[in-house]
Amino acid sequence: MQAIEGTLSNFHAIIPAGGVGSRLWPLSRAEAPKFLHDLTGSGFTLLRDTWNRVLPLAGADGIMVVTGRAHRAAVQQQLPDLTEANIVLESEQKESSAAIGLAAAILHRRNPDVIVGSFAADHVITDGERFRHAVAEAVAVAREGFITTIGIKPTEPSVGFGYILCGDELAVEGAPHAHLVQRFVEKPDLETATAYLASGDYLWNAGMFISRADQLLAQLAETQPVLHEGLLEIAAAWDTPQRGDVVDAIWPLLPKIAIDYSVAEPAAAAGRLAVIRGDFPWDDVGDFSSLAKLLSGGRPGDLAILGEHARVLADSSSGVVVSQSKRLISLVGVHDIVVVDTPDALLVTTREHAQRVKSVVDAIKQAGRDDLL
Amino acid sequence: MQAIEGTLSNFHAIIPAGGVGSRLWPLSRAEAPKFLHDLTGSGFTLLRDTWNRVLPLAGADGIMVVTGRAHRAAVQQQLPDLTEANIVLESEQKESSAAIGLAAAILHRRNPDVIVGSFAADHVITDGERFRHAVAEAVAVAREGFITTIGIKPTEPSVGFGYILCGDELAVEGAPHAHLVQRFVEKPDLETATAYLASGDYLWNAGMFISRADQLLAQLAETQPVLHEGLLEIAAAWDTPQRGDVVDAIWPLLPKIAIDYSVAEPAAAAGRLAVIRGDFPWDDVGDFSSLAKLLSGGRPGDLAILGEHARVLADSSSGVVVSQSKRLISLVGVHDIVVVDTPDALLVTTREHAQRVKSVVDAIKQAGRDDLL
Repeated sequence: MQAIEGTLSNFHAIIPAGGVGSRLWPLSRAEAPKFLHDLTGSGFTLLRDTWNRVLPLAGADGIMVVTGRAHRAAVQQQLPDLTEANIVLESEQKESSAAIGLAAAILHRRNPDVIVGSFAADHVITDGERFRHAVAEAVAVAREGFITTIGIKPTEPSVGFGYILCGDELAVEGAPHAHLVQRFVEKPDLETATAYLASGDYLWNAGMFISRADQLLAQLAETQPVLHEGLLEIAAAWDTPQRGDVVDAIWPLLPKIAIDYSVAEPAAAAGRLAVIRGDFPWDDVGDFSSLAKLLSGGRPGDLAILGEHARVLADSSSGVVVSQSKRLISLVGVHDIVVVDTPDALLVTTREHAQRVKSVVDAIKQAGRDDLL
Repeated sequence: MQAIEGTLSNFHAIIPAGGVGSRLWPLSRAEAPKFLHDLTGSGFTLLRDTWNRVLPLAGADGIMVVTGRAHRAAVQQQLPDLTEANIVLESEQKESSAAIGLAAAILHRRNPDVIVGSFAADHVITDGERFRHAVAEAVAVAREGFITTIGIKPTEPSVGFGYILCGDELAVEGAPHAHLVQRFVEKPDLETATAYLASGDYLWNAGMFISRADQLLAQLAETQPVLHEGLLEIAAAWDTPQRGDVVDAIWPLLPKIAIDYSVAEPAAAAGRLAVIRGDFPWDDVGDFSSLAKLLSGGRPGDLAILGEHARVLADSSSGVVVSQSKRLISLVGVHDIVVVDTPDALLVTTREHAQRVKSVVDAIKQAGRDDLL
């Protein structure tokens, strides 16, 4: 596959770096959320991996990061080339519609023709070249006025992801893998997922959105007028001395809603949403079972180990060990186990129950032990 | 049950405090062996529990402890009433025949009529009164010239203990539960253990031996003449200024053999071994599965927790957690699990595989990481 030459014109990447990743507790914490971890053993945090992946398409000046105020220093340390104009700090988390919408509104004021592409800071994509080709196709489709997503060709009947049902092919030059989106479907059961996989018409919803900023904002105006209005007001003040006051006055009042509901699903229903069929390895690493799969390359009998100083002694055991200490971790006869060893908290569960880790996080919240979250 | 009044005349208890308990690693260590731990949550170490249990029978002056030089300070801290004359320090571990034999030889020189009773420092017995009644019976039988053990009436078909097959009843006054021992049998398989339990003729071998010291030494002389000779030489020098020189010259050369093979089995074969049928809760807490059973009172669905500062958050999990840190330990959907959390080592296994913990210890030895043992 040939590398894409040069950046895409009028293209600006947005990296929302927000979610803690509570199903990855106690590795992921409020202070050290998932995107600040190296989950692949690449030596780079997921945030930095994301930056590196979009850099050839957007250039360092063309990447905006939306993150919490608490993470400013960590983000800047990870991304030394991130410019001041491209940092959007949230005083409190407001879900993806507000985060991506604000970035789009700011960028739209600066350049009315901008095409924005939003890419989560905490997903894993191991084939950057194929990813960039898919984005280039999505940008071509977005230029035609579609809000565009990139769906991932499923490789197994996953019950952990939402799916996109592809509709008719779209004839757009430079986008041979473009379709209309017929509809989104929530995480299915195994039987349904197996049927989806067999049909070939379903793609994993990877939560990437590429669109002309004006189209994205127009869709928001239709479905979330209050949010849209607030975002425009903040954007108008953003590059002025009034930024702080306006943000403080408006941001806390904005509704919290995922962009899937405010933009993607309404646009799909209106026939305005396109999808590029992406054929590259992708994972949102939503829990420790996904992490085990990712690290072991899918070999179920393996014991995957993550941690710079990990010292693990295993006797016929499989699963995943995450070590953030120098302690010796010994496993005897435990299968599909998940052991996460951090200085102040230890988690032991199984891959089967990895999704239930959130219940621990909830219990810790209830116990008032926020220091552990 | 009436308490036994006063100490038993000419009776001296011996507490061999030797074994590390490697199946309880990383809780048990060379520096902090099993007998120095409180495994019952009683607030007392097993060693101290043992002392307390025999104290009414022997008095503080009548209890001798045989332990490694490295544990002298810890033992004295646990047992402030232990007298200097009652401490026997081993320069290197020589198994139970040498340890108990030396204590018996020393005590015999001091009092030719002494009856010694040997009780492991790291077993758990929760009914001290019944235990003492059994010992009193054993002493009565020992006065008649028998080497006497106390067997435990089995409560389940355990495959973790050796068994004693009872022979004919013995008519000894003050010992209504005395029998001859027909033979010892090694740890059986489950089917055999079930048959043993059903027959009513088998008892668990709890490794307690009560005997006139001269009888014990005579048996040793028959089966282990070199060992016997060496022990007498050391005992002769023990209460003299030559102790150190003689010990240094002889102890390293003594054979290592368990007292079961040097004394108990030969005595049984010769019709000289008696057993008291003991009916009290006893456990040698040989591995973490035994510990789980002990702590949960046998309820299999329970999660047992051991540790002064243990903070455990469990979501539908069972087994045992041992905590030696202040870390939060969270378990999600893990059953019959064993988690042992110490500052420098973590063990995760299952009750089913608890016996295999020794393989970890062996692997650590091979890796030259003796600091972890």
